[in-house]
Amino acid sequence: MAGNSFGQIFKITTCGESHGGAVGVIIDGCPPGIAISSDEIQHELDRRKPGQSAITTPRKEADKIHILSGIFEGKTTGTPILLLAYNADMRPEDYAELKKLYRPSHADFTYTQKYGHRDFRGSGRASARETLARVAAGAIAKKYLQEQLNIEIFSYVEEVGNIKTDIHYANVTKELIEKNIVRCPDSKASTKMIKLIEQVKKEGDSIGGVIKGIIRHVPAGLGEPVFDKLSADLGKAMLSINAVKGFEIGSGFSGTGMRGSEHNDEFIIENDVVKTKTNYAGGVLGGISSGEDIYFRVAFKPVSTISKQQNTIDAKHKTVKLSAAGRHDPCVLPRAVPIVDAMSALVIMDHYLRYKAQCGKN
Amino acid sequence: MAGNSFGQIFKITTCGESHGGAVGVIIDGCPPGIAISSDEIQHELDRRKPGQSAITTPRKEADKIHILSGIFEGKTTGTPILLLAYNADMRPEDYAELKKLYRPSHADFTYTQKYGHRDFRGSGRASARETLARVAAGAIAKKYLQEQLNIEIFSYVEEVGNIKTDIHYANVTKELIEKNIVRCPDSKASTKMIKLIEQVKKEGDSIGGVIKGIIRHVPAGLGEPVFDKLSADLGKAMLSINAVKGFEIGSGFSGTGMRGSEHNDEFIIENDVVKTKTNYAGGVLGGISSGEDIYFRVAFKPVSTISKQQNTIDAKHKTVKLSAAGRHDPCVLPRAVPIVDAMSALVIMDHYLRYKAQCGKN
Amino acid sequence: MAGNSFGQIFKITTCGESHGGAVGVIIDGCPPGIAISSDEIQHELDRRKPGQSAITTPRKEADKIHILSGIFEGKTTGTPILLLAYNADMRPEDYAELKKLYRPSHADFTYTQKYGHRDFRGSGRASARETLARVAAGAIAKKYLQEQLNIEIFSYVEEVGNIKTDIHYANVTKELIEKNIVRCPDSKASTKMIKLIEQVKKEGDSIGGVIKGIIRHVPAGLGEPVFDKLSADLGKAMLSINAVKGFEIGSGFSGTGMRGSEHNDEFIIENDVVKTKTNYAGGVLGGISSGEDIYFRVAFKPVSTISKQQNTIDAKHKTVKLSAAGRHDPCVLPRAVPIVDAMSALVIMDHYLRYKAQCGKN
Amino acid sequence: MAGNSFGQIFKITTCGESHGGAVGVIIDGCPPGIAISSDEIQHELDRRKPGQSAITTPRKEADKIHILSGIFEGKTTGTPILLLAYNADMRPEDYAELKKLYRPSHADFTYTQKYGHRDFRGSGRASARETLARVAAGAIAKKYLQEQLNIEIFSYVEEVGNIKTDIHYANVTKELIEKNIVRCPDSKASTKMIKLIEQVKKEGDSIGGVIKGIIRHVPAGLGEPVFDKLSADLGKAMLSINAVKGFEIGSGFSGTGMRGSEHNDEFIIENDVVKTKTNYAGGVLGGISSGEDIYFRVAFKPVSTISKQQNTIDAKHKTVKLSAAGRHDPCVLPRAVPIVDAMSALVIMDHYLRYKAQCGKN
Repeated sequence: MAGNSFGQIFKITTCGESHGGAVGVIIDGCPPGIAISSDEIQHELDRRKPGQSAITTPRKEADKIHILSGIFEGKTTGTPILLLAYNADMRPEDYAELKKLYRPSHADFTYTQKYGHRDFRGSGRASARETLARVAAGAIAKKYLQEQLNIEIFSYVEEVGNIKTDIHYANVTKELIEKNIVRCPDSKASTKMIKLIEQVKKEGDSIGGVIKGIIRHVPAGLGEPVFDKLSADLGKAMLSINAVKGFEIGSGFSGTGMRGSEHNDEFIIENDVVKTKTNYAGGVLGGISSGEDIYFRVAFKPVSTISKQQNTIDAKHKTVKLSAAGRHDPCVLPRAVPIVDAMSALVIMDHYLRYKAQCGKN
Repeated sequence: MAGNSFGQIFKITTCGESHGGAVGVIIDGCPPGIAISSDEIQHELDRRKPGQSAITTPRKEADKIHILSGIFEGKTTGTPILLLAYNADMRPEDYAELKKLYRPSHADFTYTQKYGHRDFRGSGRASARETLARVAAGAIAKKYLQEQLNIEIFSYVEEVGNIKTDIHYANVTKELIEKNIVRCPDSKASTKMIKLIEQVKKEGDSIGGVIKGIIRHVPAGLGEPVFDKLSADLGKAMLSINAVKGFEIGSGFSGTGMRGSEHNDEFIIENDVVKTKTNYAGGVLGGISSGEDIYFRVAFKPVSTISKQQNTIDAKHKTVKLSAAGRHDPCVLPRAVPIVDAMSALVIMDHYLRYKAQCGKN
Repeated sequence: MAGNSFGQIFKITTCGESHGGAVGVIIDGCPPGIAISSDEIQHELDRRKPGQSAITTPRKEADKIHILSGIFEGKTTGTPILLLAYNADMRPEDYAELKKLYRPSHADFTYTQKYGHRDFRGSGRASARETLARVAAGAIAKKYLQEQLNIEIFSYVEEVGNIKTDIHYANVTKELIEKNIVRCPDSKASTKMIKLIEQVKKEGDSIGGVIKGIIRHVPAGLGEPVFDKLSADLGKAMLSINAVKGFEIGSGFSGTGMRGSEHNDEFIIENDVVKTKTNYAGGVLGGISSGEDIYFRVAFKPVSTISKQQNTIDAKHKTVKLSAAGRHDPCVLPRAVPIVDAMSALVIMDHYLRYKAQCGKN
Repeated sequence: MAGNSFGQIFKITTCGESHGGAVGVIIDGCPPGIAISSDEIQHELDRRKPGQSAITTPRKEADKIHILSGIFEGKTTGTPILLLAYNADMRPEDYAELKKLYRPSHADFTYTQKYGHRDFRGSGRASARETLARVAAGAIAKKYLQEQLNIEIFSYVEEVGNIKTDIHYANVTKELIEKNIVRCPDSKASTKMIKLIEQVKKEGDSIGGVIKGIIRHVPAGLGEPVFDKLSADLGKAMLSINAVKGFEIGSGFSGTGMRGSEHNDEFIIENDVVKTKTNYAGGVLGGISSGEDIYFRVAFKPVSTISKQQNTIDAKHKTVKLSAAGRHDPCVLPRAVPIVDAMSALVIMDHYLRYKAQCGKN
């Protein structure tokens, strides 16, 4: 109800401010018997971690994950799983200047309007640090989907500013994605992207981009029409990530200019299996997975925190100058890749369990 | 859970297949004391109705709304409201040929995969006829928001195929939108759009487009971070509409190429009120409404039903030829405008009540 | 949220006032492929129907059920099922005197306090007529549980006023229950109960009693600790029925006087199956079904509507005399038996699907 | 869905096994601006703590509460609140003998049936230690209700075994309850109860009893018919507590023997306020609070853990002897009083916010 939960059967509830005691998540409804170690969860978290490369923020954060419940003798018990990453001690005086200030395009103003007061340290609850809880929960979902159903989930940076890769998603592998620090599987494009990000960093500015998400081997039948279409829930999942302003699946916005005769995906039989000749639909028909690859694109705006000087106002409605102290990401996309992966895993996991509930075998 | 409900406090559950007994909706959680007549609901439904103009399907459907509960002496009672539109009698033999066939880019295949069998008459539950239930429920939400909070909701056709209006949303009025049958407030663009749709109709084909949604005067503070961000719930709402493949809010995909210094919306004071100089955010900061106009774009693919001949397969995996009998919309956008309006109203209404619950006055 | 839904996966939402257009229910999340006819649903409704015997209200109500969606070619489709019973025309002037009056122990006062105004005709939404929607939905759940899982659900009148049967539930059959109009499987006690009800009726008064509910062959493993214990959800289900003031499972209140050594149910092996020697637990251990019979008791107060004259107040806070026009049930228990059955079926069905979702086979 | 959450707007999700890393709770949907200190929460926890008196278990548990998020500068922020009590280190070998054994009337068997494996240390998730999370969350709700709405919540031990107090709840004060270690406000009865518990303890046995719950000054209008009646949600809340087997509100089971003319609560005017002459209803009419005192009774079975020798079986279906090592509560009721209080507070808090959402002022 208050917006900190995601999923209906595999349900996560995240908690924690950037500089409070901890950031964490309770996963309720996890199937019992999944073998999972804290190392496996940590592996995903490390892909999201600040300071991992020259083009991310040099800020160091304690992202070490602790399992406090729900896993016993190395396996999930079916009871709620609590995962926590404690926050490092912060000097509150570091944030004193932000206390009374509304940073442009940040949530300072809207949180204050909504709740009356706010934890102003490091953006509080609006900090992207919250997403580590999603990545931790997603790691368990991802493992289950991979092992039990052979579902493969990955994503990569397709655009940074105006630099774009034209590699086709069918040719992308996880190894290619991790080959460079920008997480673009196209080595030429990635070099340009890194250069651009370094340039933006030097300018004290930030830049946006697009991440492409891929989900392979989803069985036909997942998704709950009419409101919880698989495409709608993927869209919501992605739009709930900080800085995301757009989502499109399959042909998306580019399909709007096509004729139906061109856009319709003809059904064919391949090795006795129903397939489609093209896949403009992006693997979802009428809100339900068709068995074809699911692919979608997620638009990230340039992050709001920049060191360039800006005008803004304070709580007393006075105009003031703001120059952020720095140590922020010039481009969040490389670190957002594991977040997109996690949200994909959470959506598919939940829809798989919903499918089992209503349509599965007795 | 099974996907036929939307909203958490102002919660609607729709039911009904295209050619079953009726299409309907229960609204649970409606505030008591709202004066509403069936005429007011019917008015919105008539904007969605088939056969309303030369560029929509000539098919006639009985969209007359009946109020069966929850409204007494002209006012909502706070108890569940049941709204129904009975379906006209259909000759099942009209659909005999579709029984065993999977139409390209339709939900025939995926419904069968999911549920084992399906109501094949007129697409059954996957029919866009279901959206009349949303429009009916949205009419009540819209009235409440307008009367109680002065919130104004409207949308219009911004693109059909490659024809686009460049009118700014701030200059659009409801009257301009309803001035022509394509529901584009720009008379020059609308003429071209109508021509294109007529052309596509002649070809037995279909065409997609983009609808722009606008919500004015939303008070600051609506939206529930971190998952139920206002932007995320608007996105889900729109992506749950038949044929929608993309959603973007504020600068959306076009903002990804901008620098932060350019994209950040500077806070200013206007008449003692906090405003922003620009509004690339689209009225939502950190998932919470800022008080600025909310605007977004919704991508509709070309509808799958075309009369041009296509290849497909049947349930026995034989390749067959399909020529739809016709009487379908060459372009759904003009009729989708009230659906976008309704979904906007449902999202804002629900988030307003959620705000009241947690942060409202005692 | 607003309280008109029950269940999480097999979710029903009821609607309708006593004298509005109709009373109905949407069932969302029903497994596809269940063969069900309107006759089977009607059969359960007829057990709840007013006017069925000399000891129920002589009032005639149109309880004919209509299936408007979700069932196609005799089988559930997995999409929402709408069941409706239209209300007979009522002369509103019949209720004119109740308009401004708060009947003792009725919901007139509290509905007015909560919602500001109310549908005063025949108790509006607070009417027990709403329960027909539960019975209709329960009929589908009951059939599924019986056919798929061999789960047997029944209940009977154990007490009317101070008359009690001491027949053991293990000896009760459905046939015995339906053998007499009071639905008590003990013929001696039932004769006394009928006599008492006739006496009370003559006095223009009403009388309460206790219904015992039994659920056999529930597989071990249903129930979701810690809050949605099977016992807690059964309790809520029963306490949501009009006029219910108490619920106990297994030994209930009588177990509070026992020692642990006496009350503990010793595990034993019978035909290689784990059983318990006694069953004070009532088939639920730690909130999860054990495989033993589930049994519980539901306390119904004497219904509030009596024809004896009473004092009360009106909306202007004036004291007035009230003599109800009559035609009400002197004892609701015989007609409440199918309602208890329905609620049992809805709880078990929902928990079975929840079990499948998290712990079922892939 | 998996049963570890309670409430819809003020929603708590508990986690943690008896001997895992911690027991905790996330509260989502808490109104912002409530002043609350960890001392205030600790105060309630100390009333539930083991080892607090001669008649509770001598076992020492670390029940120190830690606030990890959602409270900033001493006030709730409206974001999720994480409260944790870390578990003391346990020697797993202490539980080795319980590993393969199903203790009578414990949840060992049913957890294993449901989930396949279980955390067997100290009953794992089925341990009553979980309830500390409820008490912690309830402390915040209780404070809000007291300060904002003057709602008073308390409960006390009314029966232990066959010893009963006949003090009327209207004469009970919080001070009287805390005057003795059994938490019965009647000093004579309490002396007998303590004697009985000491006797039972000596025998290595356990004994049950009844707790009475009282809620004063609830405004008329809380409760959501038809399923989420205030009485139904209170019932569910209490039945979700370990060892509870029965619940009754108002006249409860004893009202079933009364006539309607006797049981109906006549409306009267007192100081211009609508009151009822009697209160057999227990403060709830048609599922909605009437403004009268709410009172109810909760039946606790004798706890299953006893040191007397018992027969049971192990996982290999062999019959074995079991003598629990001791250090358990001979009677849980004194320590259950704050749990009943907490569940009352959680129900009323959630229903108050639900009322605000639908029926509150704009």
